[in-house]
Amino acid sequence: MRMFDLIEKKKQNLVLTDAEIQYIIAGYMSGEIEDYQMSAFLMACWFHKLTGEECFALTRAMATSGDMMDLREVAGLKADKHSTGGVGDKITLILLPIMASLGIKMAKSSGKGLGYTGGTIDKLQSIGGLEVQLSRQQFIDILNEAGMVISSQSANIAPADKKIYALRDVTALVDDSALIASSIMSKKLASGADMIVLDVKCGNGAFMKEFDAAKSLAQLMVQIGKDAKKQTVAVITDMNVPLGRAVGNAIEIKEALSCLKGNMPSDIKEVVFALGIQILLMGRKAENANEAAKMMTEEVESLRAYNRFCTFVAMQGGDVSQLEDTSRLPKSAIEKHIFAQESGYVSVCDCGLVGKAALAAGAGREKKESDIDYGAGIYLEKTYGDAVQKGKSLAVVYASTEAKAEEAATLLQKSFQISKQEPPKRKMIKEILN
Amino acid sequence: MRMFDLIEKKKQNLVLTDAEIQYIIAGYMSGEIEDYQMSAFLMACWFHKLTGEECFALTRAMATSGDMMDLREVAGLKADKHSTGGVGDKITLILLPIMASLGIKMAKSSGKGLGYTGGTIDKLQSIGGLEVQLSRQQFIDILNEAGMVISSQSANIAPADKKIYALRDVTALVDDSALIASSIMSKKLASGADMIVLDVKCGNGAFMKEFDAAKSLAQLMVQIGKDAKKQTVAVITDMNVPLGRAVGNAIEIKEALSCLKGNMPSDIKEVVFALGIQILLMGRKAENANEAAKMMTEEVESLRAYNRFCTFVAMQGGDVSQLEDTSRLPKSAIEKHIFAQESGYVSVCDCGLVGKAALAAGAGREKKESDIDYGAGIYLEKTYGDAVQKGKSLAVVYASTEAKAEEAATLLQKSFQISKQEPPKRKMIKEILN
Repeated sequence: MRMFDLIEKKKQNLVLTDAEIQYIIAGYMSGEIEDYQMSAFLMACWFHKLTGEECFALTRAMATSGDMMDLREVAGLKADKHSTGGVGDKITLILLPIMASLGIKMAKSSGKGLGYTGGTIDKLQSIGGLEVQLSRQQFIDILNEAGMVISSQSANIAPADKKIYALRDVTALVDDSALIASSIMSKKLASGADMIVLDVKCGNGAFMKEFDAAKSLAQLMVQIGKDAKKQTVAVITDMNVPLGRAVGNAIEIKEALSCLKGNMPSDIKEVVFALGIQILLMGRKAENANEAAKMMTEEVESLRAYNRFCTFVAMQGGDVSQLEDTSRLPKSAIEKHIFAQESGYVSVCDCGLVGKAALAAGAGREKKESDIDYGAGIYLEKTYGDAVQKGKSLAVVYASTEAKAEEAATLLQKSFQISKQEPPKRKMIKEILN
Repeated sequence: MRMFDLIEKKKQNLVLTDAEIQYIIAGYMSGEIEDYQMSAFLMACWFHKLTGEECFALTRAMATSGDMMDLREVAGLKADKHSTGGVGDKITLILLPIMASLGIKMAKSSGKGLGYTGGTIDKLQSIGGLEVQLSRQQFIDILNEAGMVISSQSANIAPADKKIYALRDVTALVDDSALIASSIMSKKLASGADMIVLDVKCGNGAFMKEFDAAKSLAQLMVQIGKDAKKQTVAVITDMNVPLGRAVGNAIEIKEALSCLKGNMPSDIKEVVFALGIQILLMGRKAENANEAAKMMTEEVESLRAYNRFCTFVAMQGGDVSQLEDTSRLPKSAIEKHIFAQESGYVSVCDCGLVGKAALAAGAGREKKESDIDYGAGIYLEKTYGDAVQKGKSLAVVYASTEAKAEEAATLLQKSFQISKQEPPKRKMIKEILN
């Protein structure tokens, strides 16, 4: 087999066999296949989209390029949850303890955030002492005892995906559904869970702006999951407005804790419940959606989910006293409000712009090596649909310097539009695919 | 400007500006743009073909990436001739002395042959002592005095084309008309001639198997020539049967000499005259095709063209005694005939297979670094359209070993098909574009 011929084959829109795709991944990892051949091949894959079979073969080849987690030592059903990334997306922090409390083992490996979509790992690290670099044994012990664990991705999980992603990133090839699906799913297949639940974000604050693109990505991922004999469900959720009120790191931990104490904004609640219901149904913990929702509500109201989160934080070495007294979480010194320029209703709270504002405030990473300011962020006192009065505060920026606060505030101001009429209610759950 | 954005632009089928294409070539030559970005870009160019303007911009950027020959010191009209490569293609060796003898300065830089299409440089080097690595001054002096010169391509003519071609060669991207056209024409624009005549081969022994592909390539090249304000003509000629009778190196020199003495097989004659007429018309040396053809015939019959060739060989250091006594040219020791298996007419003399047979005999290069056996080759005693008798010799292989001769003979035997009916006459000149 020669890479030259496989590039030509894809160029001519012929379907590659499983063995050919395995050869490509093995050759690329061994260095026999060069970056310039791989990038030409990937560009051909952009034009002649990978078929479902090719996509699965690629996913499996990348998944098996490194360690495959073995979770057989962990009793019960293991689930993995993934979000394609949004703004203010603290769903994991709320959903996992509720599910863990209901007896589903929630095992999550997560990457750091890049650009304006924050990473769960970064949010967690705003809690003093919390450790995300876990050994395999620590991962299993915490999962067994706390019922949930969140670790940063080990370097040897799907290394082929890492190498290919880095190449796609510099060759304008990140925007291909089949390549995105295989990248995400290669890590999920390597993670060893029985069930995979995918939150596919759709809207101007998400990678997939259009519903059709989000749906196509969701379909591809669900099919890969099924091909790999994993129970898989994808929920397409709205990402045109930041989720909840807080955007940042410590500030999102604080909001997540508030949610776990029962104060859940409706948008967060809809997404948490939609995902949780799917997990409970897949795991046969509930007969139907109503029963599942009732079970979840009970875990929140009883504070069992909140306590479960505290246990998890403690087991990962985090300072639980910061959860009990959230004023001890990091908070940047400069506070800057922006104000409503007219009275009416918030008709636009542009998710992409709010994300950029949070990034400008210091809450995210411009580049992989950038530092994060855990105390920086944004709190939306008003969001989509809220009534506002001219001159009153809309939102507040937290940043470590005046300059950053100023830049963030300017972006934040642009993210709001106010109309005379109350805008229509948003539909958070766009489609469920399983 | 960032290469990332230009890859994305081409991917989205937007037209690149001249400045953007210049940036790509300059960045690639400086090393700022990596091979893996260039190959992704070129693959995008395969899918979204370069427009005429983009193609010209690319050609010019590659042409000006190195030295631009300045032929102003040479009096009179300067012409450059290029063939896209065929089997038994000795047209240059016959056409150039005829034109030189008629007062057109024929300045040709040429690459070495690769695969089964032989290179003019290799054929010439079968003449003892002949030097093809010429200094700029030698090139100009020989051109001035002999009226023709053939040198190997200097390393610094269109170096961007060399670097890009090497990348295309390993990424399955050699088969794109716009990229081929810009590659060929970048070297022609750098060569400093006033007129460019292109022999675009078409058929199973040529790179372009189909007429439409050959025509599209010819059109692109003629347009680039015109955009660069060079008189340019392309003649699309048949390459389904080897040109003439000899395929190899010394053996083709011998046939070319015979042609220059007036014994021109009709296929060679048609091509030489079609190209020559175009040059004479472009150069206003003749009023019309008939007059041009008469002039050419006169140069051959008077032996002025033959003598011109001898002068050229002498000036490039070649052993002229080998021209006068061609038995002194290299000839490999082993001779192996193949025989007609039935009586009738040669209905197929497959050019691609004959080329491969010559390669197997040792007359060509499998790889760039392979050595050539100047004395190896094939002589077709019978070719397309000839009547043959069962058991009589069809062709002879010359090789240095029995094994090579055997392998070549096997391929050669397969290249012949014999039919009862006389096959239709070939049309050598398929189209002239100017």
